Amino acid sequence: MNEAIRQVTHVQNIRYDKATERLYIIDQTLLPNEEKEIELRTVEEMIEAIKMLRIRGAPAIGICAGYCMYALARDIDAKDNEAFYRKLQIDGELLGAARPTAVNLRWAVGEMLDAAKAHLKDDRAELLEALYRKAVDIHEDDIAKCTAISEYGLSLLKDGDGVLTHCNAGPLATSRYGTGQGPFLLAAERGIHIRVFADETRPLLQGARLTSYELQRAGVDVTLICDNMASMVMKNGWVQACFVGCDRIAANGDFANKIGTSGVAILAKHYGIPVYTLGPTSTIDMNCPDGAHIPIELRDGDEIKNLWYEKPMALPEVKCFNPSFDVTDHELLTGIVTEKGICYPPFTESLAALFKDKK
Amino acid sequence: MNEAIRQVTHVQNIRYDKATERLYIIDQTLLPNEEKEIELRTVEEMIEAIKMLRIRGAPAIGICAGYCMYALARDIDAKDNEAFYRKLQIDGELLGAARPTAVNLRWAVGEMLDAAKAHLKDDRAELLEALYRKAVDIHEDDIAKCTAISEYGLSLLKDGDGVLTHCNAGPLATSRYGTGQGPFLLAAERGIHIRVFADETRPLLQGARLTSYELQRAGVDVTLICDNMASMVMKNGWVQACFVGCDRIAANGDFANKIGTSGVAILAKHYGIPVYTLGPTSTIDMNCPDGAHIPIELRDGDEIKNLWYEKPMALPEVKCFNPSFDVTDHELLTGIVTEKGICYPPFTESLAALFKDKK
Repeated sequence: MNEAIRQVTHVQNIRYDKATERLYIIDQTLLPNEEKEIELRTVEEMIEAIKMLRIRGAPAIGICAGYCMYALARDIDAKDNEAFYRKLQIDGELLGAARPTAVNLRWAVGEMLDAAKAHLKDDRAELLEALYRKAVDIHEDDIAKCTAISEYGLSLLKDGDGVLTHCNAGPLATSRYGTGQGPFLLAAERGIHIRVFADETRPLLQGARLTSYELQRAGVDVTLICDNMASMVMKNGWVQACFVGCDRIAANGDFANKIGTSGVAILAKHYGIPVYTLGPTSTIDMNCPDGAHIPIELRDGDEIKNLWYEKPMALPEVKCFNPSFDVTDHELLTGIVTEKGICYPPFTESLAALFKDKK
Repeated sequence: MNEAIRQVTHVQNIRYDKATERLYIIDQTLLPNEEKEIELRTVEEMIEAIKMLRIRGAPAIGICAGYCMYALARDIDAKDNEAFYRKLQIDGELLGAARPTAVNLRWAVGEMLDAAKAHLKDDRAELLEALYRKAVDIHEDDIAKCTAISEYGLSLLKDGDGVLTHCNAGPLATSRYGTGQGPFLLAAERGIHIRVFADETRPLLQGARLTSYELQRAGVDVTLICDNMASMVMKNGWVQACFVGCDRIAANGDFANKIGTSGVAILAKHYGIPVYTLGPTSTIDMNCPDGAHIPIELRDGDEIKNLWYEKPMALPEVKCFNPSFDVTDHELLTGIVTEKGICYPPFTESLAALFKDKK
């Protein structure tokens, strides 16, 4: 068991070195061919890194934004804390606009500004220390949530099980364990053997480039497949469950996740395999009644025809339909795994209970 | 209507120019970026073209082999027809071994040798003329079968329908119309509007590189999608049927086709959309009782991780599972469209009836 723990190598996507006061991220655009840390110093460098997806995954962007705000605060040359705060607000606005759809980004910027505001009466060193503690808090809170989600997820599996997963909701997109792929890393740490089948997840290939990378690095038994091979893997009896992340969960349990998730869930139902989505309670939107109310982003067809390739794979005039996400009907879903526990159908009741408990 | 007919441009994959006695094929490895004819003269060039998939699709390889045998026969410098036949046999053996699994290749070589044998008493010019007629017969027979299949397929659709298709079973793989995609070309000729959604078909991308190319060239309203987007296209109500080709049909209606076909069929069943497979009766193997008896070719994982790409998309040590085909259960299938008509469940009876009629 101890030996197994030692063998597990987690990918650490964000690292703040307090001794040298330097912020590093793994440049995810270079994966899987190169695992290289880059330093983020100026607000311009931070914005570029977020825009260019060097750091990606909503929770990871939020964590990164916390440390960015602290690093920027350290560099502010202002006589009094009022001037300091005005400058930090400007930095926060610039940073918060780097990706308009990532909720966690603006949330983390807001949290950092609130922390600054609460310490404006303190001297600068104390104020900066409070900001650092807040950034670490955001990071540790995410680690705690991911760990709890991974624990609940792993409780659904037994040694020797196979699990199919789609897209990436691992350490690179979050912190430490991740959500959708977190149970696999936790299992590896404990010497529990889980055989993972990772959909490559076209067109952006997050499953190939990121998930199979993270899992292989951590010593998880991972097999990469094309999205269209999931049916055969299920038919062969190789998987006992499907674990996927989620981008938004409606009050009735319908949920949006990476395009192809609904297909995985329909295949799983056909073969009698349970489907779980794993995510923090912050992903649950009780104001959204059902999946029909979740807007779906459509992206450029060039991602299908030209991205990654040496040569175009279709005529320039061929039309493409390229949705980023799809909605999986709650009737296809076995359970929703959160940091507070696992919700089962009827989801309208179990999800509501989750928020009642919270109060 | 006439205007529509004029606008349709079929891709002609194999062309024998009798005036100059030259054999040309479109080099499919250059598609979709370049539609270039190359001439096949020597047996070495012919073998290379088949091996390197410059010509592919079992029926197309068979048609090409017919013309190849005629072209090779013309070049034989033998005093008597016995010596001529011995040389043609050697050429046929070399050609027939170019791709070991393509049944049509060795079948066509055999047909050409039989034709030569039947005319060994004639003078050389008559013998060669008989060989040319045989090659044209093989070609025209395939066109006739594809046309009949396309007619039966089109009879299932009405103007304005949407159809989802997977992989490539069009003119490039066969002749003129093709099978799985034939009804769309026939519809375009007749000014009938069919909206086609073509799965890109990972990992070899035949849907993107070949199907969307053929259909776009012919003026068909085609939209390219990633395989994992089929569920959303069906959920949106955009398709009224799924049309796919087939590599082998068992006596009970189970059929093997490109990997991902079984997934398409399961999704279609979930959404209440009919699924048809289209192919010649030569694809039906009455000696094969069911899908469990169809062997499935497994290919190198490099096709998933490295093919087409500028850089590898996963770590070299990541395992891959890369089956070329999957088996679709007959219970998911609405009908089998052949050149002799459409078979409906129970397939054990309707397929058997097809072969009783033949006798």
